[in-house]
Amino acid sequence: MWIDLNCDMGEAFGIYRLGDDAELMRYITSANVACGFHAGDPVIMRRTVLLAKQYEVRVGAHPSFPDLQGFGRRVIELSPSETKDCVLYQVGALLAFAKAAGVQLQHVKPHGALYNVAARDPEVARAVAEAVAEAGDHLVLVGLYGSELIEAGKKVGLRVAQEAFADRAYNEDGTLVSRRLPGSVIHDAEEVAGRVLQLVAGRTVAITGKEILLRPDTICLHGDTPGAGGLAKLIRARLEEAGIKPTPMGEFLET
Amino acid sequence: MWIDLNCDMGEAFGIYRLGDDAELMRYITSANVACGFHAGDPVIMRRTVLLAKQYEVRVGAHPSFPDLQGFGRRVIELSPSETKDCVLYQVGALLAFAKAAGVQLQHVKPHGALYNVAARDPEVARAVAEAVAEAGDHLVLVGLYGSELIEAGKKVGLRVAQEAFADRAYNEDGTLVSRRLPGSVIHDAEEVAGRVLQLVAGRTVAITGKEILLRPDTICLHGDTPGAGGLAKLIRARLEEAGIKPTPMGEFLET
Amino acid sequence: MWIDLNCDMGEAFGIYRLGDDAELMRYITSANVACGFHAGDPVIMRRTVLLAKQYEVRVGAHPSFPDLQGFGRRVIELSPSETKDCVLYQVGALLAFAKAAGVQLQHVKPHGALYNVAARDPEVARAVAEAVAEAGDHLVLVGLYGSELIEAGKKVGLRVAQEAFADRAYNEDGTLVSRRLPGSVIHDAEEVAGRVLQLVAGRTVAITGKEILLRPDTICLHGDTPGAGGLAKLIRARLEEAGIKPTPMGEFLET
Amino acid sequence: MWIDLNCDMGEAFGIYRLGDDAELMRYITSANVACGFHAGDPVIMRRTVLLAKQYEVRVGAHPSFPDLQGFGRRVIELSPSETKDCVLYQVGALLAFAKAAGVQLQHVKPHGALYNVAARDPEVARAVAEAVAEAGDHLVLVGLYGSELIEAGKKVGLRVAQEAFADRAYNEDGTLVSRRLPGSVIHDAEEVAGRVLQLVAGRTVAITGKEILLRPDTICLHGDTPGAGGLAKLIRARLEEAGIKPTPMGEFLET
Repeated sequence: MWIDLNCDMGEAFGIYRLGDDAELMRYITSANVACGFHAGDPVIMRRTVLLAKQYEVRVGAHPSFPDLQGFGRRVIELSPSETKDCVLYQVGALLAFAKAAGVQLQHVKPHGALYNVAARDPEVARAVAEAVAEAGDHLVLVGLYGSELIEAGKKVGLRVAQEAFADRAYNEDGTLVSRRLPGSVIHDAEEVAGRVLQLVAGRTVAITGKEILLRPDTICLHGDTPGAGGLAKLIRARLEEAGIKPTPMGEFLET
Repeated sequence: MWIDLNCDMGEAFGIYRLGDDAELMRYITSANVACGFHAGDPVIMRRTVLLAKQYEVRVGAHPSFPDLQGFGRRVIELSPSETKDCVLYQVGALLAFAKAAGVQLQHVKPHGALYNVAARDPEVARAVAEAVAEAGDHLVLVGLYGSELIEAGKKVGLRVAQEAFADRAYNEDGTLVSRRLPGSVIHDAEEVAGRVLQLVAGRTVAITGKEILLRPDTICLHGDTPGAGGLAKLIRARLEEAGIKPTPMGEFLET
Repeated sequence: MWIDLNCDMGEAFGIYRLGDDAELMRYITSANVACGFHAGDPVIMRRTVLLAKQYEVRVGAHPSFPDLQGFGRRVIELSPSETKDCVLYQVGALLAFAKAAGVQLQHVKPHGALYNVAARDPEVARAVAEAVAEAGDHLVLVGLYGSELIEAGKKVGLRVAQEAFADRAYNEDGTLVSRRLPGSVIHDAEEVAGRVLQLVAGRTVAITGKEILLRPDTICLHGDTPGAGGLAKLIRARLEEAGIKPTPMGEFLET
Repeated sequence: MWIDLNCDMGEAFGIYRLGDDAELMRYITSANVACGFHAGDPVIMRRTVLLAKQYEVRVGAHPSFPDLQGFGRRVIELSPSETKDCVLYQVGALLAFAKAAGVQLQHVKPHGALYNVAARDPEVARAVAEAVAEAGDHLVLVGLYGSELIEAGKKVGLRVAQEAFADRAYNEDGTLVSRRLPGSVIHDAEEVAGRVLQLVAGRTVAITGKEILLRPDTICLHGDTPGAGGLAKLIRARLEEAGIKPTPMGEFLET
């Protein structure tokens, strides 16, 4: 009954702060560290990697389209080849901070608009997967459950981690209900925590009420929403009550 | 009678071109590849590393202050700690492209204003040296002959390459004659080539006419001046006529 | 028989050069000056405005998506509101340099991907038009012939200049033949010059051979292609042989 | 008994927030709006200008060295000419947002490292003053009390506003006590408010205890420190109790 809990980290920039990384580190197993293209900068990258090490949280890279002002949430029509080079650049930069801290990079999870485009566009997915494979064939590629990015990761021979969102409703086919539809986002903390248990058990209920098969490797906890720390703590507590100890993805995913 | 010939490379940016990298690659042994902070971008970094590989030129990182508009030529008063993180970020990014191309990173040479500040400021020198050591203890740190950066590199246990400029006049103490003084820059190609031979022989003539001891490990060829290719070709020819085959610094520098 | 000849100018950046602005200034009537988001920087903006003044060429702003590395050629999915603010920012910056040089800003022409998106997307078109109207209701808005941007400009009460390309083939409906189709770009200089005369006469031949009505207010000359100066000179010569003196758009467009 | 109260505003960036602009707007008379080089972006600039207008606070530009990651606090060795162009660019951009909001730009106050360099370096001071004069000869130039920037502003014919800091200790010669010395920063809110009254009365007590002549035109309130709103409210209250109604600098400074 393994599950990884991941969270975006190091999304401060310069003097600006975002989220409470130190609080969240207490509950997660894998940290996605911003690499300077949507957030983060060299100073914050070093600090975040060291913080993860202190809490024995595994470190991953969180590359993005180059878009500081838009926090990486805007689609930028890079060619697949440009995307590949942008991802490799960012992962390489974070690798150096991981090496300096004496920790191994565990995974790569694209951020924001890049995550979304790589989930649906096979060419961009392949570009991201190839960049990750170039950076290190031991790396885990994290992508949306059932997405093109997961397929692309498998094709290039990477271990992949399929990600689910405990605060999002799912359609019967395992895709996310669009944020524009009512009921797409779940706000009640206990309900979200309950859904984590369902996801770990592989018995999630779709928005239609039908039970569907959805067994993610990792669940995304949000770090920048109000009450993020409290929700993470609750999820962790419910998991441990159920006898499930969250485990870093790198430890249970097989080659 | 070993000598390394290095040149700044990959200093294009986006659609902008600078210098004729393919021409210069024919004559040098070590390429200092821009890392995106003063020039270069992920696409150009990949291309430049592959170009160096094709010409069997060794690859180094050429980190800078963050200053695209000023081409890294302006001093930016970063703290030593910020400088260290900036350098590590850039070296890490280039390391990934080297790994992807199947070549090992050989060296790091700071660019422009960072090179100059690190030559004279012991704190910045130490910051740069520490970042390079973190990125890889096999890396060679390239700095101005007799500078603080060379001292700092030795202190952290790195191999260091002392750099001289064949087109610059030297004072009797081995420092460069200020560019503001007459005679500081040598423009005649044959004279520059002749000075390379003097530098390799360790018998350079200072601007005063006195012979001084100056035995650099590497000589900097400029890539972005008119006639750069021709001068590089001439220097290479004069060296080979004298029975000296330029060698990558990584091959002759001892630990 | 009025026609304006416009050209993108000031697309250098930092130490990087692009095109021969001084050469092109001799033949055009309106200069679209880059505003720092895809090219140009404050130093180059001042220089370019002064160069235009010296050649008695009218000055316009050439705003872009924020994309230095991609030269503004990549679509960035800004919201209309963000687009509006980005355009206003850039036009405002250039207005200050125009004021400093003692010239009036004549027009605004979006660059690259922004030009293309504003040509087809009514919301983005309106955003651009509103930003231009805010910057100054005397400004001319330049857009693709028959495009949404032209419509949007009219709606907000701006004078509009419809632009055509003498080196591009047209469909019968007055739209450009896609660059992906054979014959879409005309390379022969004399043929391009001949098409300028047809455009001025309003009697252009579509790619199908059928004569179509297409009467642009301004024709775009490219500045960054090989032979750009020669072609511009030829076009100017053919126009003057035909008794047509190119005129800045601001002088013949009525409110 | 006139005095202006100014505060830096619009120093958010993208999704990042900084300070509580809406709270501070209630107490100040002049807002220094960030222009995108150290903080702020086009979206935030528009919003901040509109917020100032809503509170009937006068709007000024707050240009900086180009340094988002360092929040404009690092010295960047631009040439005076580059500095001038950078300042003009930023003031121009803000002018457009002021015009769009239907308000007139009142003043320009350099930010951070640029403020400090322009206070002591006559060449940079002149560059800043010339840029402001180019942007509009009605603009007020705000600088450190008794600084080179004030001199430079007078020389180019601008109205100048001399600025003092109520939470900083002064030397007998009217210069600020270095932050590195004990007692340089005053933390007690009532004491700070009391010093505002002294400054308005022109009877400030230096750190030595000696009363000195220091009669500023404007006092800087900080917006990004804890309790900033409460302190601003207290200062405003103490002023009004003393019968002094803060007035925008543009209304009492004579040409």
